[in-house]
Amino acid sequence: MAPAKGILERLDAGEIVIGDGGFVFALEKRGYVKAGPWTPEAAAEHPEAVRQLHREFLRAGANVMQTFTFYASDDKLENRGNKLTFTGAQINEAACDLAREVANEGDALVAGGVCQTPSYLSCKSESDVKAIFKKQLDVFVKKNVDFLIAEYFEHVEEAVWAVEVLKETGKPVAACLCIGPQGDMHGVSPASAQIVGVNCHFDPLTCVEAVKLMKAGVEKAGLKAHYMVQPLAYHTPDCNCQGFIDLPEFPFGLEPRILTRWDMHKYAREAYNAGIHYIGGCCGFEPYHIRAVAEELAPERGVLPAASEKHGTWGAGLEMHTKPWVRARARRDYWETLKPASGRPLCPSLSNPDSWGVTKGDAALMQQKEATTQDQLKQLFDRSKC
Amino acid sequence: MAPAKGILERLDAGEIVIGDGGFVFALEKRGYVKAGPWTPEAAAEHPEAVRQLHREFLRAGANVMQTFTFYASDDKLENRGNKLTFTGAQINEAACDLAREVANEGDALVAGGVCQTPSYLSCKSESDVKAIFKKQLDVFVKKNVDFLIAEYFEHVEEAVWAVEVLKETGKPVAACLCIGPQGDMHGVSPASAQIVGVNCHFDPLTCVEAVKLMKAGVEKAGLKAHYMVQPLAYHTPDCNCQGFIDLPEFPFGLEPRILTRWDMHKYAREAYNAGIHYIGGCCGFEPYHIRAVAEELAPERGVLPAASEKHGTWGAGLEMHTKPWVRARARRDYWETLKPASGRPLCPSLSNPDSWGVTKGDAALMQQKEATTQDQLKQLFDRSKC
Amino acid sequence: MAPAKGILERLDAGEIVIGDGGFVFALEKRGYVKAGPWTPEAAAEHPEAVRQLHREFLRAGANVMQTFTFYASDDKLENRGNKLTFTGAQINEAACDLAREVANEGDALVAGGVCQTPSYLSCKSESDVKAIFKKQLDVFVKKNVDFLIAEYFEHVEEAVWAVEVLKETGKPVAACLCIGPQGDMHGVSPASAQIVGVNCHFDPLTCVEAVKLMKAGVEKAGLKAHYMVQPLAYHTPDCNCQGFIDLPEFPFGLEPRILTRWDMHKYAREAYNAGIHYIGGCCGFEPYHIRAVAEELAPERGVLPAASEKHGTWGAGLEMHTKPWVRARARRDYWETLKPASGRPLCPSLSNPDSWGVTKGDAALMQQKEATTQDQLKQLFDRSKC
Amino acid sequence: MAPAKGILERLDAGEIVIGDGGFVFALEKRGYVKAGPWTPEAAAEHPEAVRQLHREFLRAGANVMQTFTFYASDDKLENRGNKLTFTGAQINEAACDLAREVANEGDALVAGGVCQTPSYLSCKSESDVKAIFKKQLDVFVKKNVDFLIAEYFEHVEEAVWAVEVLKETGKPVAACLCIGPQGDMHGVSPASAQIVGVNCHFDPLTCVEAVKLMKAGVEKAGLKAHYMVQPLAYHTPDCNCQGFIDLPEFPFGLEPRILTRWDMHKYAREAYNAGIHYIGGCCGFEPYHIRAVAEELAPERGVLPAASEKHGTWGAGLEMHTKPWVRARARRDYWETLKPASGRPLCPSLSNPDSWGVTKGDAALMQQKEATTQDQLKQLFDRSKC
Repeated sequence: MAPAKGILERLDAGEIVIGDGGFVFALEKRGYVKAGPWTPEAAAEHPEAVRQLHREFLRAGANVMQTFTFYASDDKLENRGNKLTFTGAQINEAACDLAREVANEGDALVAGGVCQTPSYLSCKSESDVKAIFKKQLDVFVKKNVDFLIAEYFEHVEEAVWAVEVLKETGKPVAACLCIGPQGDMHGVSPASAQIVGVNCHFDPLTCVEAVKLMKAGVEKAGLKAHYMVQPLAYHTPDCNCQGFIDLPEFPFGLEPRILTRWDMHKYAREAYNAGIHYIGGCCGFEPYHIRAVAEELAPERGVLPAASEKHGTWGAGLEMHTKPWVRARARRDYWETLKPASGRPLCPSLSNPDSWGVTKGDAALMQQKEATTQDQLKQLFDRSKC
Repeated sequence: MAPAKGILERLDAGEIVIGDGGFVFALEKRGYVKAGPWTPEAAAEHPEAVRQLHREFLRAGANVMQTFTFYASDDKLENRGNKLTFTGAQINEAACDLAREVANEGDALVAGGVCQTPSYLSCKSESDVKAIFKKQLDVFVKKNVDFLIAEYFEHVEEAVWAVEVLKETGKPVAACLCIGPQGDMHGVSPASAQIVGVNCHFDPLTCVEAVKLMKAGVEKAGLKAHYMVQPLAYHTPDCNCQGFIDLPEFPFGLEPRILTRWDMHKYAREAYNAGIHYIGGCCGFEPYHIRAVAEELAPERGVLPAASEKHGTWGAGLEMHTKPWVRARARRDYWETLKPASGRPLCPSLSNPDSWGVTKGDAALMQQKEATTQDQLKQLFDRSKC
Repeated sequence: MAPAKGILERLDAGEIVIGDGGFVFALEKRGYVKAGPWTPEAAAEHPEAVRQLHREFLRAGANVMQTFTFYASDDKLENRGNKLTFTGAQINEAACDLAREVANEGDALVAGGVCQTPSYLSCKSESDVKAIFKKQLDVFVKKNVDFLIAEYFEHVEEAVWAVEVLKETGKPVAACLCIGPQGDMHGVSPASAQIVGVNCHFDPLTCVEAVKLMKAGVEKAGLKAHYMVQPLAYHTPDCNCQGFIDLPEFPFGLEPRILTRWDMHKYAREAYNAGIHYIGGCCGFEPYHIRAVAEELAPERGVLPAASEKHGTWGAGLEMHTKPWVRARARRDYWETLKPASGRPLCPSLSNPDSWGVTKGDAALMQQKEATTQDQLKQLFDRSKC
Repeated sequence: MAPAKGILERLDAGEIVIGDGGFVFALEKRGYVKAGPWTPEAAAEHPEAVRQLHREFLRAGANVMQTFTFYASDDKLENRGNKLTFTGAQINEAACDLAREVANEGDALVAGGVCQTPSYLSCKSESDVKAIFKKQLDVFVKKNVDFLIAEYFEHVEEAVWAVEVLKETGKPVAACLCIGPQGDMHGVSPASAQIVGVNCHFDPLTCVEAVKLMKAGVEKAGLKAHYMVQPLAYHTPDCNCQGFIDLPEFPFGLEPRILTRWDMHKYAREAYNAGIHYIGGCCGFEPYHIRAVAEELAPERGVLPAASEKHGTWGAGLEMHTKPWVRARARRDYWETLKPASGRPLCPSLSNPDSWGVTKGDAALMQQKEATTQDQLKQLFDRSKC
């Protein structure tokens, strides 16, 4: 059952569409996804965990349930030691069913998602790469998702290929690159995607800046598009152009960088002011982060999310705290101006990112099916010390 | 159905018992608990959310499912604007059922939990306070929990009262204060609790220090006990004796203080080395934090938790990452020595805690049923500025 | 007595010329200059203090004794409450005598220095501003300084006027702007100055970047010049285009930003590698900072400065420390990799600079002779709070 | 020529006596002292530099000119590679002459100073150690200093020996240990020194705390004394009991820890409020730090120091700054509440001190005459890595 109003009808009508948060990182912390290969089989293996996370994002205000199909292409599943209990088709089908089940509990849309492939990184041909996208799409068409998202593309060429395949379905298509303002986005054509934007790799304000540049480029070319942004929930002022993957804290030491709900208020406002109407999150976004986005934009949207029943706006719930000095924190200006301490005086506030500077075509990036050997690891250690 | 071996049999046999993490903070972020009144009704209102969190902790290695009955005493429910859709009995019963349901999916024990009461803070009589505990206990006895935990007591007197009531059930009793090494714990008698320790309010290493002092006091008195610790998952080196509630970041700006999984390895080892065999977590602990405790102690326990299937020990899963410089991080010494940056160069690393220095008996701490009025809030703001 | 080899002969021969450090800030800390008006009368009033500082820089390796004539133009002396015990001519003459006296103790050159004027900021005419420069120049010619430096110019136009006047003397002229890489230096023509560069306002590595851009611009224009750099001894990664004056710590809270001697080694090497051969310092540079520059470039220059007699290169003097764990620090890699802590856990690592964004022509910058009144100050406080 | 009023007459009359700052560190930065052996020969070798520093402290408000005779005992001069151009007697005599010359330019007292010896550290006998002190004292008596200071003693026993020798001269004696509040100072008897206190090793507020404990101990024993404090000008909250020497930044990376003048205001007030009337500084204190002490206590003393002529109290001189936003900083509350940034986002705010935990008697502390060999250094490096 599809909802009454599609994604383009909503955006064309000037509605704000709130996306969900990142499944990979949230489910890793809950014990269902393995960091490194970023295993996608949870939808088939532990549906109750994926269903519950969908529900929490719905409750938090998300209007889109994105299928948990990140890195669920057949070539990625074969890559570097994934467990192969389930076929790609089984995983993609289970993910579609869960997204639809929860979407129907509210008025949310289901978006089928594809992302960059190891095939492209390993220099496979355009037709090979497109065939990979096609296999996921077959499931999305069969399960009748409401629209499609091609996201997390580091290479514009591969994104264009993806959009071309996705457009053949006749469904609305959104396309997101994972590059920041330093990436040359002035020349990025949205191809024929109706919605364009940026996801992952950088913190919210950086991603909003990147979409602004993209929007300026699109408009300068005399084209039209809707804009979306789904950033990290980590502060990344020290990233170079390759994003948070190069930070030494990635992926197991990012905790001190997690945004507060108040940071999210600022993000939602900045994104909206920049003319971005599809506003969601990626890695690091937990349900309360999405709720903060929805609460910030409640005046424009005319509605608070269900989960706000358990949250006083700007800390108002603290009016009911036992201790009077905590009750004194029940006010907007307290939380807006707070500079939260890390509790880690032996740690720096910024890091130097790794920067090997290799990209598609470099031998070091050719993907393999087998797990890395001890010999290969030793070479990497030695190289990383330089 | 109770598991074959009780809590005391396990501890007497020298087994390590791993506790679960904090429900209140985790469910707040998932959208089911309101910070401030710290509403407990989720067990009755959204059982699927509470069940899922229990499952994640079980998967992460927890041997105890603690009933989500924190602040679910009748006097607390009436206090400062809680929603009263459910009676205290309904909430406590639902929480027992959920804990048992998930405990039975593994080999876990069910612990019924009580904590400090607004009645005590408002200077009610011993019999009044004990009556409050008794009402929760009636449910725990009816639902036949495996043992009892009296936790989060700031005042030793109230903890003693609680233990006295709990002991009447004939079930094993654990008692935890939420005080740190600066609290005078040398004189703390475990009364007749079989397990004593510390929970909440301070970071793991601080709590381990506090339990060490407590243990030294118990042993000096010629007594015997088992020891437990369930600390915060936040770094709190700047706390004064009243704990993290006094930090300006409490409760909505604590993100930069969240412990990494590697911090948890250190914690688990320190706790074990201190002779503490019941090792769990409180506010801030997510399932992956408990998994890290279980992984650190896997050599002693001879078993990895279920969720380690989705986690390579010490980052080994990164051997399967796409980028070679991330694969180079797949090693213990990398993560053990990493000093993670906050990404917040405009923020300090420590804070000055509030310290009104008021305690039980101070008029400012008399609890009321109504939400705080605007006039009362204004007085608090003014006082907090001094 | 002028030294045998002039500034251009040295630079033309490929020699490295080491400048001195900043007199204004150093003498402020020693009690002879008033921050705010940055009083210049010390040369006449306390010659022993100025002479001693010259000597320390000479000992540290400086090849240039710059006359302490910063802000010693007649219009500046009349501005905002300076003490007028001495005439501009008296101050400039005394400064020349002291510089020559100490220069003759070694093989150093004397440089007469002029800087930007309140007249320009108050929109006086070109001839008025040039007349101001002319008055200082008359002294420099009379005292026969070896070359001239026009430095600390925020506005290119005023710098050009200054160079035009200075060139009329027939002496070699160096010209320094106090702008960073964000200033548009590609279009900066060195006019007819033989040496061009950057001084003050930004930290060493930032200034080196700025001179690199300037050099690229000069070379692209098919011109030739020598290059110089005299940066701050403060870390300023958080400055906007207006430099350290806008930092909230300016000028009385800059201590945590002071560069170590090891930072100076890196600076000297980077400057030299960038093709800059006149390398000195400005505000914050103490004699030991200049010594570090001289020690880093000792292999190229073939000589250590006199003050190195009291300094083991790269901490070698610590081999003679009483404590063995301090002796263990007597090595280059220890100091090169040290990340020095601030000892200030309640402070951030970066600041937000003030940025009123006003420049020449704004009424707020019209200079006055009288000290600011209390009413004017109150207006400033109110404006600064916005 | 001795001044009209001696040190005890001043203190007995309730006057505040302001000490000077540290010569060793200040002259190291000026190029006249070698860190490591901390060479003392500058008084004989470069009298103009030592004289000028005395003058700056006098101008800043110091009432005491302490002879620059730190580590100028004969056994120290022979130790680990000092240059032996001058005899101990020559150095001590020259230092006395310079101190008296400048003291006579104001109304300052001359204090002859001795400190701990390598002989004691190498376990020489009481009579050997006392003979070392005696040799310096002979000079002080001959040059008729006004009083004596035994300072920088880590071991109470050696301090007692020193005081015993000093008292034989009949001159007033002050005695300072370099230990913090963690050192057990309750049991410290001032022996027969008339003035007791703490110098060096810790930051100002820590030293004030230490003197408070010392004062409490003295008073509890029913004794009377005057109190003095001469702390570091470095923030050292992360020091262990051995002080700043154990910090990894000692001695060449301490810059980010330097106190601002505003920190000194707070120090002066705290010291005075604690009943300490002899208030000065040690390593890191520059003339402007002493001036800040004098300015803070100007209401009590009824006089501003000479150097305040070049300083507006609490930043008032900024009223005359060119830029209006800097003029807006000309007020006390601005500087009192400023949290100065380090400009070093890659650095932590605190460090882990080295802590070998060795003390007198450990073979590693036996002093030798020769410079440390490369073999010895290698052993130290290896040990320091553990």
